[in-house]
Amino acid sequence: MSVDWGHVFAGRVGGMTASEIRELLKLIDRPEIISFAGGIPDPDLFPSSAIARAYEKIFQSNSGAGAALQYSITEGYTPLREWICDYMGGKGVNIGLDGVLITNGSQQVLEFVGKLLIGPGDKIVVTRPTYLGALQAFSPYEPTYLSIPMDEEGPEMTALTEALAQKPKFFYLVPDFQNPNGTTVTLARRHAILDACEAAGVPVIEDTAYCELRYDGEHLPLLAALDCERNGGKLTNVIFGGTFSKTMVPAMRVGWVNAAPEVVNRLVLMKQAADLHASTINQIVMHDVVSQIFDSHLKLLRTQYKERRDAMLAALEEYAPPGVTWTKPEGGLFVWIEAPEGVDGTELLARAIKEANVAFVPGSAFHADRSGKNTLRLAFSVTKPAQIREGIRRLCGLLKTAA
Amino acid sequence: MSVDWGHVFAGRVGGMTASEIRELLKLIDRPEIISFAGGIPDPDLFPSSAIARAYEKIFQSNSGAGAALQYSITEGYTPLREWICDYMGGKGVNIGLDGVLITNGSQQVLEFVGKLLIGPGDKIVVTRPTYLGALQAFSPYEPTYLSIPMDEEGPEMTALTEALAQKPKFFYLVPDFQNPNGTTVTLARRHAILDACEAAGVPVIEDTAYCELRYDGEHLPLLAALDCERNGGKLTNVIFGGTFSKTMVPAMRVGWVNAAPEVVNRLVLMKQAADLHASTINQIVMHDVVSQIFDSHLKLLRTQYKERRDAMLAALEEYAPPGVTWTKPEGGLFVWIEAPEGVDGTELLARAIKEANVAFVPGSAFHADRSGKNTLRLAFSVTKPAQIREGIRRLCGLLKTAA
Repeated sequence: MSVDWGHVFAGRVGGMTASEIRELLKLIDRPEIISFAGGIPDPDLFPSSAIARAYEKIFQSNSGAGAALQYSITEGYTPLREWICDYMGGKGVNIGLDGVLITNGSQQVLEFVGKLLIGPGDKIVVTRPTYLGALQAFSPYEPTYLSIPMDEEGPEMTALTEALAQKPKFFYLVPDFQNPNGTTVTLARRHAILDACEAAGVPVIEDTAYCELRYDGEHLPLLAALDCERNGGKLTNVIFGGTFSKTMVPAMRVGWVNAAPEVVNRLVLMKQAADLHASTINQIVMHDVVSQIFDSHLKLLRTQYKERRDAMLAALEEYAPPGVTWTKPEGGLFVWIEAPEGVDGTELLARAIKEANVAFVPGSAFHADRSGKNTLRLAFSVTKPAQIREGIRRLCGLLKTAA
Repeated sequence: MSVDWGHVFAGRVGGMTASEIRELLKLIDRPEIISFAGGIPDPDLFPSSAIARAYEKIFQSNSGAGAALQYSITEGYTPLREWICDYMGGKGVNIGLDGVLITNGSQQVLEFVGKLLIGPGDKIVVTRPTYLGALQAFSPYEPTYLSIPMDEEGPEMTALTEALAQKPKFFYLVPDFQNPNGTTVTLARRHAILDACEAAGVPVIEDTAYCELRYDGEHLPLLAALDCERNGGKLTNVIFGGTFSKTMVPAMRVGWVNAAPEVVNRLVLMKQAADLHASTINQIVMHDVVSQIFDSHLKLLRTQYKERRDAMLAALEEYAPPGVTWTKPEGGLFVWIEAPEGVDGTELLARAIKEANVAFVPGSAFHADRSGKNTLRLAFSVTKPAQIREGIRRLCGLLKTAA
């Protein structure tokens, strides 16, 4: 006799749906496809030799290998946490070791934020659009989403203020070169957001996978830095999620969270219950690599990705039919296209793959309310400029017939 | 103004308490302490050179390094999943690729089981004692524990039958050389458990971190294998958690779960939401290593750990005062001591560290109902025989004065 699994699943499973992005990632392997789908870094730009040397070093002594392959403390490898304290300090975010926990990429930060803060039916605030992975992390905890629109400066303040009046558990935001739409929140808007959230007693979750990948303009202070500034130098109301997935490599699954010690304490218990600790050897290797090449490697990435962004924007300028608009990101990996109303991104994708060998992600996936059917997310990160131009030419040809 | 964090934490945080084991692990670094506390494998026995070679191989080609350092599919590295299908098949557990998901050790299997199956107030059945890490994984999802006693053959069937009548979500069990008490469930009792659980429509969660570490007696079939036998060759009612942490190394955080495809489907979505996937490079390395040395390495581990178990049992025979009893495990890493009623394990630990430079884990930590105050868990895995003898001599000296 079989267990009736449907009957024993807990309610929190209901919120989970398969990721369109993950399914699309499989298309990247077909060589004839020019894919703008996967929001992934270019493996040709990985600092492989620095990483190889770091692994080699570990195995040069028995005791080093033994420690690197053994269980370790839940909080994370201390030298890496010290490096992160220094790094965040340089950005105006003052934390001690009790303010940092190493996680499996920043996706696990989102998972823990959901588990820590969302009770069934609790309201949480996200932007429209927002990061799909955040929706996937939060939804199993059954929140009610308050989805607020964005203008050129960031989240619309009237909508945000109204949402905050409904006593949400937190406001989740990607302020720099947001995945999916590439936009950056202005300095004035950052202050306004902190004013409003602080007044409402609502924490801000700042997700910054892309903040180091700026190609033009001036670096803006992190919300976490502004929060420190406003609160006697201490990180107080912002939970900050960072990752080495876009600056170094994703496969080692090393990210981190910074927050007030009373929050990090809870997250450490959560990490221990969830998977004990991040991979010891990967943390040691990551520490070795970032200690040596972090700044120089970022310079390389910025040069390369800037060329690709420029190629994509130039091709759109050249080929896009009337009625199609797009964002001009100052950094990150993504350009966001808005097609005329009536164009359905998912239908367009099916045609794009079949008729034009080009792929992207339909924008509706990034809307908690499943709006945005006429939007598309294009990643320029894994495609060389000539291919980008060709892919945009093909996509715009389709858009011409669809619009 | 600061957010009132206590107010915004979701209810599910309440179940979490700091792990006595984790705190105690810190003591292992003091050289004067003979520690039986950490349930960890001996780093001197890690297959470091095979692991070093596997890392080296990855970096011999750019494309190999690129793929190993990139994002990968949530289900896990296909060749490793294929290896697991073969390995489990050899144990009579028939699964296809859709029946296996790679996790961050088996701790993450427990976390996912909790998240998938436990709604607040749902009853779940555990043994008394049971694995502390399971309690830590389940508690945040706010179950009501039904904690059933064990006899020489395994969980007491009368108590289990009564518990199953209360419609629990699952029965969690470590059938082989259980952490903490080292006992193994007999074949007859395994059948009886499956009879009872199947009749009640209650799934069994089988946790088998230690099943390969048998030093005497005959290997018993997995509950998962018996479940296949009873259900037309298909894994049906058992969710099986496996890990390479004890057979290879813990630091790479590679474990897995096997279950019916409809369960694994849900767990894959959960894994994607939680941290996207297990470390790509670690999975590739683990696959390389287990393909080459799994059997030969197990032989080495069994020889070494058997000596240590024998040393601990012999020393207890020699030094234990009257009224103290202990288990005689046929495998695994642990011996379980029952001191006379009235001895408090936690108080004894404080004295043991201060007066005798010896450490263990108080057994009450392994009881969902916090009973078992007079029990102690001793790991023999990281201490050489002569030190084991000396540590047991010291501990028994204390027990003499405490009893």
